[in-house]
Amino acid sequence: MKRFNICLAGSGGQGLILAGVLLAQAAVNDGKYVSLTSSYGPEARGGASRSNLVISKKPIDYIIPKSLDVLLALNQESCDKFILELKDEGLLIIDSSQVTHQPPIKHYSIPFTDLAVKAGAAVTANVVALGTIMVLTGIVKASSLELALSERIKQELLPVNQKALKQGIKHGRKLKNNADEHYTYYQSLAL
Amino acid sequence: MKRFNICLAGSGGQGLILAGVLLAQAAVNDGKYVSLTSSYGPEARGGASRSNLVISKKPIDYIIPKSLDVLLALNQESCDKFILELKDEGLLIIDSSQVTHQPPIKHYSIPFTDLAVKAGAAVTANVVALGTIMVLTGIVKASSLELALSERIKQELLPVNQKALKQGIKHGRKLKNNADEHYTYYQSLAL
Repeated sequence: MKRFNICLAGSGGQGLILAGVLLAQAAVNDGKYVSLTSSYGPEARGGASRSNLVISKKPIDYIIPKSLDVLLALNQESCDKFILELKDEGLLIIDSSQVTHQPPIKHYSIPFTDLAVKAGAAVTANVVALGTIMVLTGIVKASSLELALSERIKQELLPVNQKALKQGIKHGRKLKNNADEHYTYYQSLAL
Repeated sequence: MKRFNICLAGSGGQGLILAGVLLAQAAVNDGKYVSLTSSYGPEARGGASRSNLVISKKPIDYIIPKSLDVLLALNQESCDKFILELKDEGLLIIDSSQVTHQPPIKHYSIPFTDLAVKAGAAVTANVVALGTIMVLTGIVKASSLELALSERIKQELLPVNQKALKQGIKHGRKLKNNADEHYTYYQSLAL
């Protein structure tokens, strides 16, 4: 049974709990099963924050921590820490403005925060990242992710998040057009 | 390091994902760390649904599936299935109207659904159960749980849920007054 393991990590306040909920909802909209683990702490603003998702076409009975297919790291600390959990052929995606010490393995370095500012709000870097991950991995359909946004985000915040998603998708497609073997591998890994 | 493992299980539509979020938020309000795992599926209405929480005074780095300190089972299937994960001295709490085949171990059988109807809506059985669990285990403070409700539940649904919480707390206190060894054990287990 194929399972797709994704970790979305960064600082508290970067919206990684919400990003996990959105991606989980998108996968359910796709007809898939999801287990979502989110860590909360009293230092929710500023401390480490992560969401771990297991996505599968079949019901997920046991949540066994396994190595990651995809790691999104929106800050240096989470990149340094969780890179060890990534599979050898895993996909590492970092925010280029936040992760300044480049990791020693092949990765995508993407200006999520800058793209979010372009979309109208720096705080939507989480949703920009979801758009890019979606295009690079094919793990959920664009329509399912768009639906998840409208289901889970408050009406008044929806337009800026929809714009952020579009920015992320656009950037992902640009990278896709420069597809290398690494990317091609991930297309075949998609459920 | 002491960790408290709780599983809230039942059918899709019984609000166990929300119950997990509320309990996680209450624990954070208490100054504790929480890891919350929720399982979502395309059959969200009707299929099995569960939230697993690990609550600790210290940051939770690794989520290792461990045996349960507390199992709340709101339907027969989840009782039959997850009872195997309960510690020997674990606390089993079932809904008396939904779990009709009494489990073969010591447990609390509580009419959560009936109490929810009394509070004004059968769908608040999840919140009634949280109130009772809170009193029986002492895992979070009442004020933290009340705050979590106002933070996480929509304004228009808040009054009925607050009433449900009060029903659950009241029932828990009644049981507490008939405290047996089992209950006393759990008081000492609280973080």
